[in-house]
Amino acid sequence: MSVTNALYAQSGGPTAVINATAQGVIEAARAARPRLGKLFAARNGILGALHEQLLDTDAASADEVAGLGARPGSAFGTARYKLAPFEEDEREYRRLIEVFRAHDIGMVFFNGGNDSMDTALKLSQLGRRLDYPLACIGLPKTVDNDLPATDCCPGFGSAAKYVAVSTREAALDVAGMARTSTKVFILEVMGRHAGWIAAAGGLAGNGFGEPPHIILFPEVPFEQEKFLARVRESVEQHEYCVIVASEGARYADGRFLSEAGGTDAFGHKQLGGLAPVLANMVRESLGYKHHYAISDYLQRSARHLASATDLSHAYAVGEAGVKRALAGANAVMITIERTANQPYAWTPSSAPLEEVANREKELPPEFITDDGYGITEAARTYLQPLITGEAPLAYRNGLPVYANLDLPEVPCRLPPFK
Amino acid sequence: MSVTNALYAQSGGPTAVINATAQGVIEAARAARPRLGKLFAARNGILGALHEQLLDTDAASADEVAGLGARPGSAFGTARYKLAPFEEDEREYRRLIEVFRAHDIGMVFFNGGNDSMDTALKLSQLGRRLDYPLACIGLPKTVDNDLPATDCCPGFGSAAKYVAVSTREAALDVAGMARTSTKVFILEVMGRHAGWIAAAGGLAGNGFGEPPHIILFPEVPFEQEKFLARVRESVEQHEYCVIVASEGARYADGRFLSEAGGTDAFGHKQLGGLAPVLANMVRESLGYKHHYAISDYLQRSARHLASATDLSHAYAVGEAGVKRALAGANAVMITIERTANQPYAWTPSSAPLEEVANREKELPPEFITDDGYGITEAARTYLQPLITGEAPLAYRNGLPVYANLDLPEVPCRLPPFK
Repeated sequence: MSVTNALYAQSGGPTAVINATAQGVIEAARAARPRLGKLFAARNGILGALHEQLLDTDAASADEVAGLGARPGSAFGTARYKLAPFEEDEREYRRLIEVFRAHDIGMVFFNGGNDSMDTALKLSQLGRRLDYPLACIGLPKTVDNDLPATDCCPGFGSAAKYVAVSTREAALDVAGMARTSTKVFILEVMGRHAGWIAAAGGLAGNGFGEPPHIILFPEVPFEQEKFLARVRESVEQHEYCVIVASEGARYADGRFLSEAGGTDAFGHKQLGGLAPVLANMVRESLGYKHHYAISDYLQRSARHLASATDLSHAYAVGEAGVKRALAGANAVMITIERTANQPYAWTPSSAPLEEVANREKELPPEFITDDGYGITEAARTYLQPLITGEAPLAYRNGLPVYANLDLPEVPCRLPPFK
Repeated sequence: MSVTNALYAQSGGPTAVINATAQGVIEAARAARPRLGKLFAARNGILGALHEQLLDTDAASADEVAGLGARPGSAFGTARYKLAPFEEDEREYRRLIEVFRAHDIGMVFFNGGNDSMDTALKLSQLGRRLDYPLACIGLPKTVDNDLPATDCCPGFGSAAKYVAVSTREAALDVAGMARTSTKVFILEVMGRHAGWIAAAGGLAGNGFGEPPHIILFPEVPFEQEKFLARVRESVEQHEYCVIVASEGARYADGRFLSEAGGTDAFGHKQLGGLAPVLANMVRESLGYKHHYAISDYLQRSARHLASATDLSHAYAVGEAGVKRALAGANAVMITIERTANQPYAWTPSSAPLEEVANREKELPPEFITDDGYGITEAARTYLQPLITGEAPLAYRNGLPVYANLDLPEVPCRLPPFK
C-alpha cells in the first residue's frame, strides 16, 4: 500500500484561533513522516475538495507554519456549504472520492462547528459506501461553544475573553459619565441559539451589583416588563446599567427580539440588530440616555486578545486529530476533556461524530441565576479557565503582524467539476 | 500669601488613557511641593466643583497613582455640563469662586474636549471678573481628535489603534469566508463631525486594494449611487468589501445618513445607527450578504489595546499643565507639538484657550484620496506614529487589572448649592 496523503479543510465561520488548529495538523503531519505522505489544505473548505483546489502545505517553512497560530480568519478560506444527503444526490460524493483518489488522500481533517460535523460524518461514511479507504476526523471550532460531547470548543475561549474584557472596559466608561450622560449601555454579542458568549460577559464583574447588571440569554424567555423594571432598578441603585445581550434573545413564543425591527424610511423591512430594539424600549419606557455596541465579527476575529488556554486547545485538537487518524480512528470528533477545575487541567479525547453532528449544546440551567439575568458560581467555575492566559502578538507599526500564507495550488489531475 | 491648592477635573466623554493625564497631574503636583499645596480631584467634573465634592488625591499611594494610567473611563467621574454665559447667570460662577476660596484653590486643571475647553476658558477669565486669584489650564482629551492648535489629542491615538486593528482582524475574517457567505462588512466608528477615527481605519491596509476598501468621512458628501458602484466593484475585484464608516457620514445637504432610519414596529422613530442604513442599502440594491459591527464605547475604552505614544501624550499634558501653571500661565491649553515625522518626535507646548474653545478641526482635504474613499500618504504620515507602540497591562484571571481608586471626599465647608 502506498503512503497515504491527507487533506485539511476549514468550514463555517472563522475564529481568532482556527489557524492554530491548522498549525497543529501540519506540524503533527510533518512529525509523522514517513507514515503520512503529503498534507493538502483545501481552498475554501469543502469547495476546494470538490473543485480540486488543493494547497500544498509543504511549501510553507517551519516558521511560516508556526506563525499560523497568530493569524485570525481562515488562512486557507472556509465555506458555508452543506452537502445534500447521499440518497438524494450522489454526484458531489462521487466527485469527492475521485479527487481523493487522484491525490491519494486517505484522511480528511474537517475543522468546523455543528453543520460542519454533519459534513464530516457524511465523509466518514463515504469510504465504505463507495469502496475507497477514507477516514474523516472532525476538529471542533466554533465561537458559539455549542458542540456536544466536548467540554468546550476552540474559538469560544477567545470570543469569551473579548466579550468579558470589552464589557468591563465599556462599563468603566459608562460608570464615570452616568451622572450627566449615558445611563444604559447594551453590548450585543453572538450566540443565536445558545447563550455561552453572553454568559462570558458575566465574567466582567464579580456579581453583587458589578456590571454587567443584566445578561440576556436565548435560553431565558424575554419579558419586557420585568426587563425594564430591572433596568430601572439598576440605574436607581448604581446610577447606570450595563446589559450584555445575546443576539438570540427571544420571546416565550420563540420570536427573536431582533425581528421586532420595523421598516426603514423607504418602507423596507429593517434587518435585525437586537441592540437597537432594546435601546428603543429603554428610551420609550424609561427615557434614559443609552448607547449600544454590536461586536459582530470583531468578537470572533480579535486574535490580539486571544485566550492562551483557547489557543492551546485549538492547537491540541489539530495535533490529536492526526495522531488518532494514524492510529486508525474514523468518524470521531476530537474533544477537549476537562480533568480538573482547580487548577484547571484538560486533555484531548474524542467522541463519535454520530453523537455530535447536528446537535446543539445549550447553556445548562444551573449556569443561569434564578432571576434569569446573571451567571452562577457554577458558570464561573466552568468559564474562568477558558479565558485565562494571554497570547500576545508581535506588533509592527502599531498593528499586530498577521502573516498571510500564500501556498501554491497542486496541479489538477481531473477535469473541472460542474 | 499661603500655599495655593489645585483642582483637577475631567470633563466630557472618557478615553482609554484619560487617567494617564490625571497621573501626570498628580505626580507633577507632588513633585512641586512645597510650592503647590494639596491637589483635589473633582467628583464628576465641574459638578464636583459646584457641589463641593472634592476628592483628596493625597490619600492615594504612589503605586495607586502610578496605576491610574492603566485604567480606562473617568476614574473620578466626568460630566457633560455647560455653564451658562456669565452675562446670563452669574450664580454658578460665584459659587465656584466660593468653593475655590473655601479650599484655597488657585489653579484648575480642566481635562476635556471642545465643549470643555469653553468651560476652561470661562474659568480662566473668572479670577479677574470676580477678583480672586485663579488660573485655569486646559488639558486636551478627545478621541475625536478635533481640537485645534494641537497636533493631536490624547485619547485619539488609542481609539485609532483600536479601529485599525479591529478593521484588519475583521477583514481577515471576511476575506476567508466571502466565497460562500458575507461579502460586505461595515464597521461604524465615532466622529460625528470629523473623520479622524474613520481615517485611522485606513491604516489597517496599505492601500492598493487592501481592506478597508471604502472609508466614509463626514467631510465627503455621501453619494449613494457612487458608493454602491464602489461596493460592487470591490466585491467583483476582491470577492469582498470592507467599509469603515464614520457615524457622521452625511448627504450633501447636511443630513446625517443615520437619520434616514424609519420607524420601528410600534411606529416610533428609529434612533440612528449608520451601519444598518448602509447595510440595507447594500442588500436592497446589490443583494450581497452583509454584516456590521458598531464599536461605540468599546473604541474609546479599549485600554487593553492602547497606543504607547498616546499614553505618553496623555501623561505629558498633565505634567506640563502643572509646570506651566506654576510658572504663571493661565488661559492656555497644553498642546502636543510634532517636531519630526521620521523618526517621530514631539514636545508639549501650549496655545491660548481663546483659539481653541468651541472650534473643531476637520480632517484636511489632502488627507483624503481624490475618490473620497481612502486616505493619502500624507494622512498615513500623520496617523502612523499616533498608533505606534503597545502599552500592555497586567492580567488576572484572564482580565486586565483595572484598579479602582476610592478617594475620600474632603469635608464640606459650605452649605449645599441649589
